[in-house]
Amino acid sequence: MISEYKLTRRVQFHETDAAGIVHFSCFFKYMEEAEHAMWRSAGLSISTPRAEVGWPRVSASFDYHRPLRFEDEFDIVIRIVAIGDKTIRYGCLITKGDVKVASGAMTIACVRKGVEPLQSAAIPAEITAKFEVAAESATP
Amino acid sequence: MISEYKLTRRVQFHETDAAGIVHFSCFFKYMEEAEHAMWRSAGLSISTPRAEVGWPRVSASFDYHRPLRFEDEFDIVIRIVAIGDKTIRYGCLITKGDVKVASGAMTIACVRKGVEPLQSAAIPAEITAKFEVAAESATP
Amino acid sequence: MISEYKLTRRVQFHETDAAGIVHFSCFFKYMEEAEHAMWRSAGLSISTPRAEVGWPRVSASFDYHRPLRFEDEFDIVIRIVAIGDKTIRYGCLITKGDVKVASGAMTIACVRKGVEPLQSAAIPAEITAKFEVAAESATP
Amino acid sequence: MISEYKLTRRVQFHETDAAGIVHFSCFFKYMEEAEHAMWRSAGLSISTPRAEVGWPRVSASFDYHRPLRFEDEFDIVIRIVAIGDKTIRYGCLITKGDVKVASGAMTIACVRKGVEPLQSAAIPAEITAKFEVAAESATP
Repeated sequence: MISEYKLTRRVQFHETDAAGIVHFSCFFKYMEEAEHAMWRSAGLSISTPRAEVGWPRVSASFDYHRPLRFEDEFDIVIRIVAIGDKTIRYGCLITKGDVKVASGAMTIACVRKGVEPLQSAAIPAEITAKFEVAAESATP
Repeated sequence: MISEYKLTRRVQFHETDAAGIVHFSCFFKYMEEAEHAMWRSAGLSISTPRAEVGWPRVSASFDYHRPLRFEDEFDIVIRIVAIGDKTIRYGCLITKGDVKVASGAMTIACVRKGVEPLQSAAIPAEITAKFEVAAESATP
Repeated sequence: MISEYKLTRRVQFHETDAAGIVHFSCFFKYMEEAEHAMWRSAGLSISTPRAEVGWPRVSASFDYHRPLRFEDEFDIVIRIVAIGDKTIRYGCLITKGDVKVASGAMTIACVRKGVEPLQSAAIPAEITAKFEVAAESATP
Repeated sequence: MISEYKLTRRVQFHETDAAGIVHFSCFFKYMEEAEHAMWRSAGLSISTPRAEVGWPRVSASFDYHRPLRFEDEFDIVIRIVAIGDKTIRYGCLITKGDVKVASGAMTIACVRKGVEPLQSAAIPAEITAKFEVAAESATP
């Protein structure tokens, strides 16, 4: 059972902005990259052509503590903090060495694919079988 | 005195993802585009080479209600909900016609430029002279 | 018959990089935004859920002459320089006032949608009916 | 002496578009990521706060042969094909297993930093000391 994942990453030049730091919108990409790596570590893919469900984001947030700059190496820890019938909630902590860079949260919902408008669906058993809420379920 | 701004925008193809909808990280770009347009409407630029202060983001969040798709035309309303000595807080509402698409919030901090580590600074008078908190200071 | 389109655009902050200029990859987004606006001006959409064909890019290039910076206003002129049975080729010129910023080119191919691997297809008549090669078919 | 570098990378969800494939503009980010990794492998950084020169792109191009999709793992090989007094030219090949996905090229110019307008400069000796043209100097 997977409840947490740590991804190590380097800042790419195209992620910086004219203030010389990583653009704040990129942190949401980082959080999602760690999420998808966690799913792969559970033997799952969050998006396949033949999947019957999809996973749109319901909410996402970040608090920014310190900037990241070009070529900084940093860690993204994502942790499952809640699993509902139709939603999963994550906490996320981004650090550079000992420095706390940013802390985020994200909730995703399970929806039936190809249905318009979006319609929520129960999380398939083969997915809930792989994930559990992290022991210390506060934001990491 | 400016307290609110509405930007009308169309979804570009490079903003969509393999789920066929706008990637959730793009909403933060949209909110920022509206913010900068509001500053311009006040005769200001949030980032100039000769500015003595910069405006990193302290926090940012979105709740997603409905997806946006390629070529959808939509409105971004950004509103000042609080002005502190060193921070400004915005609320943001994204709509497509009558449909509420997403609601966001963002806090930015005034910092002395070129100082490392970041050091907060009082908002310059020529900036506070142009902005005021929106009458109805809830998220739009 | 449409053969050319001019889109006026402003540089957004998230398009800049730590060198203080627009990241070179964004010019390809700009060229595509102008392309899609040209298709809309012809009453067409390059991508709809029910379309039978899609338009992947076969090649794309830019020569960069001058940088663009945050809040610069600039023009993107896209022009059809060749229409084949299964491909369309564009030239693109980006200018800021009198200054030539960049010149690009892009070839797109018509493919049957949902077929794997990609399979080229004749351009539908309702599309060729709307477009023609620009009179002066050199890069604008 | 470094003349070539291979970076292995996975497609991230935010790099895909509504056609279900990697957006063509992302290939330029991929080529640049490999370039910067090659510079690091030579003990260099292409952009540091204290550097006296910068490296804007003069031209960039890609030919697209096959699409990349979410979670595809692929290789980016970048190779130095020419070193002039003030410019470096790269060839780039992107492959997925045995499949040739795309081939690119990019020329960068050495410029004096902080000078407006951009002014070309001789490549510093500590940089030319690290790089050489690849033996087989055709596009990889």
